[in-house]
Amino acid sequence: MNHNCSSREEATVGVGRELHDFAARLYPICRSITGEGLRQTLRFIQEHLPLQLHEVTTGTQVFDWTIPKEWNIRDAFIKDSTGRRVVDFQKCNLHVLSYSSPVSGKMSLSELRPHLHTIPAHPEWIPYRTSYYKEDWGFCLSHEQLLSLPEGEYEVRIDSQLTNGSLTYGECFLAGKSSDEILVSCHACHPSLANDNLSGLTVATALAAEIASRKGSHRYSYRFLFLPGTIGAITWLARNRESTERIKYGLVLTCIGDKGAFHYKKSRRGDTEIDRAAAHVLALLSRDSQVLEFSPYGYDERQYCSPGFNLAVGCLMRSVWGSFPEYHTSADNLDFIKPDSLAQSLEVCSRILEVLENNRLYRNLQPYCEPQLGRRGLYRSTGGEFIAEEISARLWVLNLSDGNHSLLDIADRAHIPFRRILEAARLLEENQLLERVSEHRMAVAEEEIADKKLATDQ
Amino acid sequence: MNHNCSSREEATVGVGRELHDFAARLYPICRSITGEGLRQTLRFIQEHLPLQLHEVTTGTQVFDWTIPKEWNIRDAFIKDSTGRRVVDFQKCNLHVLSYSSPVSGKMSLSELRPHLHTIPAHPEWIPYRTSYYKEDWGFCLSHEQLLSLPEGEYEVRIDSQLTNGSLTYGECFLAGKSSDEILVSCHACHPSLANDNLSGLTVATALAAEIASRKGSHRYSYRFLFLPGTIGAITWLARNRESTERIKYGLVLTCIGDKGAFHYKKSRRGDTEIDRAAAHVLALLSRDSQVLEFSPYGYDERQYCSPGFNLAVGCLMRSVWGSFPEYHTSADNLDFIKPDSLAQSLEVCSRILEVLENNRLYRNLQPYCEPQLGRRGLYRSTGGEFIAEEISARLWVLNLSDGNHSLLDIADRAHIPFRRILEAARLLEENQLLERVSEHRMAVAEEEIADKKLATDQ
Amino acid sequence: MNHNCSSREEATVGVGRELHDFAARLYPICRSITGEGLRQTLRFIQEHLPLQLHEVTTGTQVFDWTIPKEWNIRDAFIKDSTGRRVVDFQKCNLHVLSYSSPVSGKMSLSELRPHLHTIPAHPEWIPYRTSYYKEDWGFCLSHEQLLSLPEGEYEVRIDSQLTNGSLTYGECFLAGKSSDEILVSCHACHPSLANDNLSGLTVATALAAEIASRKGSHRYSYRFLFLPGTIGAITWLARNRESTERIKYGLVLTCIGDKGAFHYKKSRRGDTEIDRAAAHVLALLSRDSQVLEFSPYGYDERQYCSPGFNLAVGCLMRSVWGSFPEYHTSADNLDFIKPDSLAQSLEVCSRILEVLENNRLYRNLQPYCEPQLGRRGLYRSTGGEFIAEEISARLWVLNLSDGNHSLLDIADRAHIPFRRILEAARLLEENQLLERVSEHRMAVAEEEIADKKLATDQ
Repeated sequence: MNHNCSSREEATVGVGRELHDFAARLYPICRSITGEGLRQTLRFIQEHLPLQLHEVTTGTQVFDWTIPKEWNIRDAFIKDSTGRRVVDFQKCNLHVLSYSSPVSGKMSLSELRPHLHTIPAHPEWIPYRTSYYKEDWGFCLSHEQLLSLPEGEYEVRIDSQLTNGSLTYGECFLAGKSSDEILVSCHACHPSLANDNLSGLTVATALAAEIASRKGSHRYSYRFLFLPGTIGAITWLARNRESTERIKYGLVLTCIGDKGAFHYKKSRRGDTEIDRAAAHVLALLSRDSQVLEFSPYGYDERQYCSPGFNLAVGCLMRSVWGSFPEYHTSADNLDFIKPDSLAQSLEVCSRILEVLENNRLYRNLQPYCEPQLGRRGLYRSTGGEFIAEEISARLWVLNLSDGNHSLLDIADRAHIPFRRILEAARLLEENQLLERVSEHRMAVAEEEIADKKLATDQ
Repeated sequence: MNHNCSSREEATVGVGRELHDFAARLYPICRSITGEGLRQTLRFIQEHLPLQLHEVTTGTQVFDWTIPKEWNIRDAFIKDSTGRRVVDFQKCNLHVLSYSSPVSGKMSLSELRPHLHTIPAHPEWIPYRTSYYKEDWGFCLSHEQLLSLPEGEYEVRIDSQLTNGSLTYGECFLAGKSSDEILVSCHACHPSLANDNLSGLTVATALAAEIASRKGSHRYSYRFLFLPGTIGAITWLARNRESTERIKYGLVLTCIGDKGAFHYKKSRRGDTEIDRAAAHVLALLSRDSQVLEFSPYGYDERQYCSPGFNLAVGCLMRSVWGSFPEYHTSADNLDFIKPDSLAQSLEVCSRILEVLENNRLYRNLQPYCEPQLGRRGLYRSTGGEFIAEEISARLWVLNLSDGNHSLLDIADRAHIPFRRILEAARLLEENQLLERVSEHRMAVAEEEIADKKLATDQ
Repeated sequence: MNHNCSSREEATVGVGRELHDFAARLYPICRSITGEGLRQTLRFIQEHLPLQLHEVTTGTQVFDWTIPKEWNIRDAFIKDSTGRRVVDFQKCNLHVLSYSSPVSGKMSLSELRPHLHTIPAHPEWIPYRTSYYKEDWGFCLSHEQLLSLPEGEYEVRIDSQLTNGSLTYGECFLAGKSSDEILVSCHACHPSLANDNLSGLTVATALAAEIASRKGSHRYSYRFLFLPGTIGAITWLARNRESTERIKYGLVLTCIGDKGAFHYKKSRRGDTEIDRAAAHVLALLSRDSQVLEFSPYGYDERQYCSPGFNLAVGCLMRSVWGSFPEYHTSADNLDFIKPDSLAQSLEVCSRILEVLENNRLYRNLQPYCEPQLGRRGLYRSTGGEFIAEEISARLWVLNLSDGNHSLLDIADRAHIPFRRILEAARLLEENQLLERVSEHRMAVAEEEIADKKLATDQ
């Protein structure tokens, strides 16, 4: 992120453009937690990824929840006495309360009013509202529109269906060298909302495509989930309860397309490697980046971090959901998300994964005093007053590589970017000054730490 | 404390008035570490509580100390050459150095002067001074008074007695469901000083009366001690050394009647449940409230926290002793303590005890993903942007109730008042979503923690 | 340091004067990492201390390094066309790049220029440069001098020798009651640089002389090392690898003669007793004093704290090397170091050692309640509002002396100077209120802590 070479900048512009176009293609679709809009969205992603679509039948029990009826909608409107559509689903799919039951009839404005949702504080925006588990119907419209409606009779129609069907979600598994998995999850259940839902879908798709192109040469296996919020994550967890043991780390992506600074919300455990990796990467980005404590509200980290699972899953955002006025309104549109922001978010995800992929334990093979770096060409022989960061990175790696400090531990203690520390470790390894502590040993060490932690927590 | 309903306010005014009247009744009595004034004070408290009075004979060895002679005083004065009482014990009992030996005779002002104590910085106030363990006599007077005394001969009389007798203290035990005890201790040895000594006696009496009215339905047993400072606490500990094992937590009450912000001084251990409960309650009161580190000077927490006992006893104050100019002077009078302050102090004590009484471990019975609160009427189905604190409290209780986090742990982590968290826990328990982890298990867990702590400390 | 008595001030002035004179005697000598200048320096120190000189032959392998050839120099100059020495080693030994190979010949200014080192930012100062391990030659001069050189031919001569010989270092061992050692190490390889190298040599010599005068009555054994930086420390460690186990604590002294505030750089372990002792002493000196985290660059703490040794060795400085403009230039001269600063640095070293020598565990023999200090004359019987620090020190020592808190633990928790706490402990011991926990027990306790720490670190 600190590089300024113009070819790189151009590449970023190109990537950003592509990401924004991808979001724009998905924008018009009327998604909900079930139904054709959701399926259509997943099929579009399938064009870019080896994505498996799963269908789970209405009525299936998933932990404490039940898969609801499938909801589909063809049309909806409110017509005034002249037959003009004053509220029209065809113009904006936010106009209908999601999961509205069908309705058809004539009614006065005062009969209609309890079913109309607006945002008086932002009179030009249409709110986004849902009623998944309580049967209801309604329209969302701008407050200006509401105020302009004359008294009188209106024709009201919602041509929707609530039928036995299924809930759909998409899953893309990319096997790596280890069966340990990193989970990336995003929700796909919001209609025309850009930052909330499309930004996550877009970045996750690009990230998965990038990893897929490495053809399994990566350390971890990756599992990308594109699913309806809450009920989708609960469904996946209910159907894969045993295999969650393989999930070492995970990331929920949401609201990562706007211009705001990055926010990483820690996992419930709070001190896992992904929490530290994300904090490290964000600290290098800008002073505005923030690491937030876990809380049991937000997106699907709620489910992954429920006490029965307690997975090491955090949530990456730019502006925090609920904290920006455009949230859950028609103002969260394609202008609200920026090509540059999407590209940078993809880069940040890659950086976090880069840390996880490369964070290992090494052992200094010359642990008694410093090795003579000069004769290996790894030190400047006539020194000035200050030590360049690349030299200092080598000294730190040598000093702390006693089999107990991972590269991320070293990067954090040295206040040096992980990438620089990794570079130093590779150079020292090439020079036979460092060796990697075997995976097995590291796994054992991690288990021991986990055991101790458990013992302490109890 | 956050409620604004006027009936509650009126109740508080009424309680404050009663508390202040109680203090006013005790104000004129000349108390010391032994003697009739102390007995009279305890008998007055006895009218409100099942208080047992203990007498310990002069000369009894209590650890490193010996019960001193009993001190009583009938009269004391300094008369000028015209026979006028220029310093008169009958007008204010602070005029005599406490534990003054008897004296009677005539002397010049210069002979008298080494025996006169004043506060030049506050020339209108009379200081409070004592000489318990070194035989001495003296008078305390305002600096103005001293300056106004002409040279000449004075008649000096202290009609006191130091005789074999006994030290008196009062003890009120209120059995609860468990034999584990909470100790509340305050000193009763200062003459006409209101914030220092009367405020503690007053609030402790009201608190004990409140608990007594619950007729044993409370979780813990309570032991209230009203005793002379230092020597009284040492005496009680010497006579009850074995039973201190039952004391789980304790609170010393002093200087809690003035208008200052609350201060809680932590126990020597510093991280016990009462330390955390008090910090939690104070943090909700106001930003001015402060939690102070333990120090081995102050009131009787010094004895309860001596290394041989090391009890979990903290000290609750408003203004900190020694830090306000009125401390140990005639300005610490009935105007210095306020009905409202006394009532609020009583409320704060109750809140701290409420936390201790209700702080338990629970287990989420649906730990895999969130349970569906909506269908149980525990969630708002059509949500706005912000989650109400009551909903958030339920989510926190569910998320952290894994058998390892107490309600206080949850309240602290969620930054939500304990009472709200408790309310959520009860509601979730009623809805079969939560169950209490048995007392036995919790005791075992606490012992394990204590063992670990011990092992770490050693 | 808080005392103001004028006799003490005079003594300090006298000590400072002596220390500065000592540095002045060493200033003109042309030291390097080997050679006669180094030997001459060590022999001068030998006049003040029982210092053993060691010679290690060129070519000897010391860990990853090899003892280099011995370097000696008789003369060096650049003469202009008139035969005038425009750069003259006889005037200032910084003029020659240290370890320059011999050179003799005529050359034009442009041929010469790549071998000339200056500091454009400080045009009046001569830089100090070295090239120990890459054969090279060069001159250092002020930038002003360089600019004044006309084009033309110059006679260039460096009359140096690089021959098989040996590396010299000095070692002074002062046996104490215990075989556990405290190491004090300073570098002796810089030519006419005062703060960098002479200040350390001077203070270390005075400190060693002070300890030697105690004739073994001290608790720890002391080992003072005067050696060439990096290669000298590596050599000593290679030759004494086994006996490093006896080193409990150590201090590298450098740049402690200037007027800057004190800086203590922590050992790699960071929480050892010497780290805490130094932090305690510095905190009492002034708000400007700073404790710095360990880093693997700096002086010989790099070697002592390499992962194979990981000794509890910190580094005491005033201004931090590299952070002041005079560093490694001719401006680091005898005016840059101050008699007062040297004397205060000696005092600070003594204070740190005083803590280590006296930091022990005690046990309160009257742990149940406070003992009655008054009847032993250890408390003021008629108290005012505030407790004097000496009384408070006694209460803290009694309260925390449970066999688990050392005097330094107590001093830190009480925010009272160690010396005051030590004074209180001695007084209480005399009064049979305190007893020392045996050395053996303490060693066992420390080992247990170390074991636990090890277990936690792994």
